[in-house]
Amino acid sequence: MSLLGGLTIWFTGLSGAGKTTLNRAVSERLTGCGLSVESLDADVVRKAICRDLGFSKEDRDENIRRIGYVANLLTRHGVIALVSAISPYRAVRDELRSSIGDFVEIYVNASVETCELRDVKGLYRKARGGELPGFTGIDDPYEPPLHPEVECRTDRETVEESVEKIMTYLEARFATAGKK
Amino acid sequence: MSLLGGLTIWFTGLSGAGKTTLNRAVSERLTGCGLSVESLDADVVRKAICRDLGFSKEDRDENIRRIGYVANLLTRHGVIALVSAISPYRAVRDELRSSIGDFVEIYVNASVETCELRDVKGLYRKARGGELPGFTGIDDPYEPPLHPEVECRTDRETVEESVEKIMTYLEARFATAGKK
Repeated sequence: MSLLGGLTIWFTGLSGAGKTTLNRAVSERLTGCGLSVESLDADVVRKAICRDLGFSKEDRDENIRRIGYVANLLTRHGVIALVSAISPYRAVRDELRSSIGDFVEIYVNASVETCELRDVKGLYRKARGGELPGFTGIDDPYEPPLHPEVECRTDRETVEESVEKIMTYLEARFATAGKK
Repeated sequence: MSLLGGLTIWFTGLSGAGKTTLNRAVSERLTGCGLSVESLDADVVRKAICRDLGFSKEDRDENIRRIGYVANLLTRHGVIALVSAISPYRAVRDELRSSIGDFVEIYVNASVETCELRDVKGLYRKARGGELPGFTGIDDPYEPPLHPEVECRTDRETVEESVEKIMTYLEARFATAGKK
């Protein structure tokens, strides 16, 4: 697989939908191809550059813009930046698509019910108990992508199936880029 | 000139000492050598990821840590990140040196008197007039580096002389890295 220039691969979806799992798996595959890869997990980036931000719409948008700023810098230098972030609002995701250019949106789609059943981090339980007000999918909105490059139905597909979908898309994209 | 891996080149000094001027000139020289270069100016980065921060010691340190986080990511991917930031506190600069590793500190040294005479942005006038409390060099401290890789005395040297000093240092460093 070859790639001319960098790319931002943006995993959006509810908490517990499987963004981090898919990010890691795709990152390993791309690293295995000898590509320069950086995984940015919103939870980690938040501690590094967004400690001041809360979970209001304004703060969430600012959080996504800052992660986008970092992803954009890396992309411009030929890195594949893989970002996992709930990023619930469509407008700011579209803003990043437009400013970064080389942008692939992966909709990690599982229903709230499924994510709540998994509840890996125990966050849904806390949200239902009123400990986490403004929790996406419970009492805060999630706006799904209208035209994502790839949609992974993680409530119906295995991780391997989702990863294959993403890799198939990327291979086709890189092949086209190589022919330009 | 060849380089194995990235590097952070950190320009520290008072407002008006010439950090941005030297950053631009060195950036052009390195780009001319075919290297992958990104200039990060603290004033610009502040708008992108530090809009919440003021100029208290705590906020200044957090500002520098965030810029350092971005520079570190770029450095890890083989980019030469050139940062211009007053970065008045020694401890946080040393913290970045230690976390980034490939770190070159350039002390852009001109006296407060010289910087105030230049006053390109009119900031010293405002600071003296009480409009900008906590202004570095006037009523806020600047802790000069104890062992910078390069010191540019911009009150005595021409821009060309300062750039040559930096390039001579970098060429020697890259040559050594190439022999490893």
